[in-house]
Formats: sequence, structure tokens, C-alpha cells
Amino acid sequence: LGMQGPITQSEVRVRYAETDQMGIAHHTAYLVWCEVARTDYLRSQGIAYRDLEAAGLRLPVVHAELTYRAAARYDDVLVIRCWVSQAASRKVVFAYDISRPADQRLLATAQITLMAVDSQHAVTTLPAQVLGRLVVAGGRARR
Amino acid sequence: LGMQGPITQSEVRVRYAETDQMGIAHHTAYLVWCEVARTDYLRSQGIAYRDLEAAGLRLPVVHAELTYRAAARYDDVLVIRCWVSQAASRKVVFAYDISRPADQRLLATAQITLMAVDSQHAVTTLPAQVLGRLVVAGGRARR
Amino acid sequence: LGMQGPITQSEVRVRYAETDQMGIAHHTAYLVWCEVARTDYLRSQGIAYRDLEAAGLRLPVVHAELTYRAAARYDDVLVIRCWVSQAASRKVVFAYDISRPADQRLLATAQITLMAVDSQHAVTTLPAQVLGRLVVAGGRARR
Amino acid sequence: LGMQGPITQSEVRVRYAETDQMGIAHHTAYLVWCEVARTDYLRSQGIAYRDLEAAGLRLPVVHAELTYRAAARYDDVLVIRCWVSQAASRKVVFAYDISRPADQRLLATAQITLMAVDSQHAVTTLPAQVLGRLVVAGGRARR
Repeated sequence: LGMQGPITQSEVRVRYAETDQMGIAHHTAYLVWCEVARTDYLRSQGIAYRDLEAAGLRLPVVHAELTYRAAARYDDVLVIRCWVSQAASRKVVFAYDISRPADQRLLATAQITLMAVDSQHAVTTLPAQVLGRLVVAGGRARR
Repeated sequence: LGMQGPITQSEVRVRYAETDQMGIAHHTAYLVWCEVARTDYLRSQGIAYRDLEAAGLRLPVVHAELTYRAAARYDDVLVIRCWVSQAASRKVVFAYDISRPADQRLLATAQITLMAVDSQHAVTTLPAQVLGRLVVAGGRARR
Repeated sequence: LGMQGPITQSEVRVRYAETDQMGIAHHTAYLVWCEVARTDYLRSQGIAYRDLEAAGLRLPVVHAELTYRAAARYDDVLVIRCWVSQAASRKVVFAYDISRPADQRLLATAQITLMAVDSQHAVTTLPAQVLGRLVVAGGRARR
Repeated sequence: LGMQGPITQSEVRVRYAETDQMGIAHHTAYLVWCEVARTDYLRSQGIAYRDLEAAGLRLPVVHAELTYRAAARYDDVLVIRCWVSQAASRKVVFAYDISRPADQRLLATAQITLMAVDSQHAVTTLPAQVLGRLVVAGGRARR
């Protein structure tokens, strides 16, 4: 809806603990990497997720969709790009792609929806200031 | 496609290691529980996934979609129902719902697509015998 | 100290997600299984760990020692035996052995020390009632 | 034995998925961070662990001892120092300390023993070249 938030880039290296006996990164690891990227996205916008929680806000995942195109392997360096694809007062949808610079392959894409709840897990709304920062390019709202 | 495979039920108890600081089971845990249920499903149909791998077949996840409706908590007993919603020569889609008998709540639903690849991770086809067993109600193919 | 607590037995089946590319269960999984066994031990003594936390008590791990003798593999059924090897007002040491009934092999042993802290993570003492139950054979204190 | 290997430093940031409902990093995460540090140590000595595995060598963990002194929390930046404390033809012991630069606290120490096995998991010896590199300060053996 005319949102112009940034695209952030996060880097992870595949950990041995993340592999499975197929010799590839287990499919749950991609969700964890997306979560790492989401923390980085928020930080880039001047939002520390740990502060949101300290203020009583929780952002549990309510929907996740992942498409796996090629396998990540142990010790691979991966880049996760993250952006906000939709934002409303109670929900934010983050989109991701995960690629491997070494061979320029796109390994996976994901869309993950978070809902705002309070510390009792009742649905709430995102504070306007947080919502505003989520979708402002370059975090300029931080002025 | 007129498939009439069974619906299996698996039980897990939420582990402490599966919780996060929101006080609920982390969203990756649901994928692990679905994997547990999938192994049980295959076993109920007379298929040992470890034998498939020993025979050179791999079934990596190529797509996953999860909807989280209510939070699972530490020590909750959960039931995962699992069935095959689509099966073709190269792909199988498993569907799941995860509920908590204690309060009869549906916590999550999921659809997870597996693709058949060989030990070199090249796309292959499911052996006809495996495919047949996947969708036979009650595992009657085991005769 | 003349303690005569019970030895409990818990069963787990190795999950695919717990394997690594060596084709065996990753060494962190054993700590998770010990945690599962510890919850079962407490339950057998009439203690619900979730209730202890609700009452403000936390039992973080302060020391862990594991010896790995043979590898657990995907889909193996394992038995974890758990008992209290030492208990004092601020610390409890649980001991474990993990074996595979199918071939009667002992796979691992562990000793894990928990410390009592309050909800602010300050050291505290175990309530006498909890301490008493920890080491009573057969949970007879539950009368 | 007069070994003079280097001490490497690795950095991790605590992931949300690594926390538990106590609000701290779960005790298994420290083992994973040590594994990350070990990969970095080997790399610093000119050894790619993935190449060792490709050559048929495996280095499973046979013993682990961890002492937890203070809790790591979500989003904390941690530094893991890693060095070889003992090395022999079949076994290598890595030592670690994990600290948080922000408040200069030592959070944990660990000692983890790896054994050399072949691709059939039979005990073997470390190739002399690998053993030599493990304990040479600054990786000078790479000349």
C-alpha cells in the first residue's frame, strides 16, 4: 500500500548443528535465519525487539510460508534479504529471500506474518511509532 | 484424485528446550512435530523412512505452510494428525493439524511438500511401491 | 547423604531434526533428552516444573558433563534413566544414562547440576517441600 | 605437551530461537556456539572441516563439560575464545570460554573432546598433517 520500507541484508554461516543426515541444512533452520534477519531489520529501523518485549508487546508468528529451491550446506555463507511486504495495525508480513553468494543461487523464499499481542497473549495493536518506523525507508522516521 | 489414505495420530509433549522467551513453543517446533508425525505416518503404511534413505531415496521439504492459531506451552501434550493430501510421482503433500486435547483447541495447521531426490540430490520419482503405500487406507497394501 | 530417590525411565525416539550430517544424533540432543527425563522425574515425585516456575522458582543448568559412548541414530528408541545423585538447599545434581534397548547398548551418561534462582535470577533455596520430594523413593512423600 | 596453538575468537549474537521460557539462552545453545568456534579455529589453522569429512574423517564429540556462570540473553553479542588444550593421535580436546563484551562478564567455560573416526564410525587416527596444524600457533604450518 505504497510502503517504501528498506530491504536489509543479514549474513549467516550454516552451523554444523543445523545440518541433518541428508547432508543439508534442516528445513527449520531457514525459519531461524529469517528470525535473525527480522531482528536486524527492526534494528535498522531503530527498533530493538528486546525493548518492545520489555514494554509488554509480543510479536508471535501466526503464519509462515517457505519455498525451498536449493539446499544450503554446512559452512555455506548465506545472505538473507528481508523487507516488510504488508503492515497493518495488528499484523506485519515480512518477506525474505535467502541466497548463497558463492554460486549466486537463490535457495529459498519466505513470507512470515507476525501478530501484535500483549504480555497476556491477547491481540493488541502495534504502537503507531513502531508501525511508522517499520515501513519508512532508511529508517528516516528516527529523526 | 480419489486418494483414501489414513489419518494418523502422533503425540508429543512440549519440551522445555522448545520454548522461547515469549513463554510459548517456538514456531520452528511445529515443523519438527510434523516431521515426527510424518515418520509415524510412513511407519503406519509399512514404510521405514530410514530404509528409504538406505536405498538412496531422499525426501527433502520443498514447501511448507503453517498457520498458528493458539500457542502451545511447555509440558502440553499435543496430538498431531497427519494425512496425505496429494501424491504424485515426484512430490507428496502431507497435511497436518496440531491440537491440544486438554482444552480441545486446534493450535496449528500445516501443509508440507516433499520432493523425491536421489542421493546426489537430483530429482527422481518415488518407487511405485512407496507411492502406492502412501495413499492406501489403513495400510492395507501391507498384505 | 543416604538419599534414596527413585530412578525414572523415559523413552524418546530420535527425531530426524536431531540428526546431523554425520548421520547420527547431534550431541546437543542428549541434553534435551536429559531435560525431558528430568521433567518426568519431577512429575514422578509429584512436582510439576511448570508450577515451580509459576511460583517464581527457576532451575537453570549451572554445570553439565556428558560422556558419549556410542551414537544414537534416527528413529532409534532410547531409554533415559534419571536419578538424583546429590541434593542440597541450592543445588541438585541429576544423573542420567541413555541406552538403546534394541541392542542393549549404553550410549551416554550425564551429570547435570541445577541451581535454584528466583524470577530475578538471584540465587535462592529450594522450598523444603520440593527438596524433600526430590529424594524420596517412589514419591511416597506425596501422601 | 608443549603445544602452542592459537586462541581464536568467534562472535555470535544470541538468537531468539535460542532462548527458553526462563528468558535466557537455553543451555544447549552454548554447545552450538562452541561448535561454531571450533569450525573457526580449524579454519584459522587452514583446515576446512567440510574437507575433512569429504576425505572420510569424522570428529564426533565424545565428552563435553560445561560450566555456566551467568546467563546469556536474546540479542547479546558474545565472544567465544577457543583453543586446543590437548591433542593426540585419536583425540583432541578443545577448551572454550564464552564472554559478553558489553559487561565484560565471563558467562561459561567448556571443554569438549572429539575423537577421530572413519566414515563407518570406527576409531581411526588424525592424519599427521591435520594434527600438526591443530596445534601450531598462527597456523604457520600452512607454509
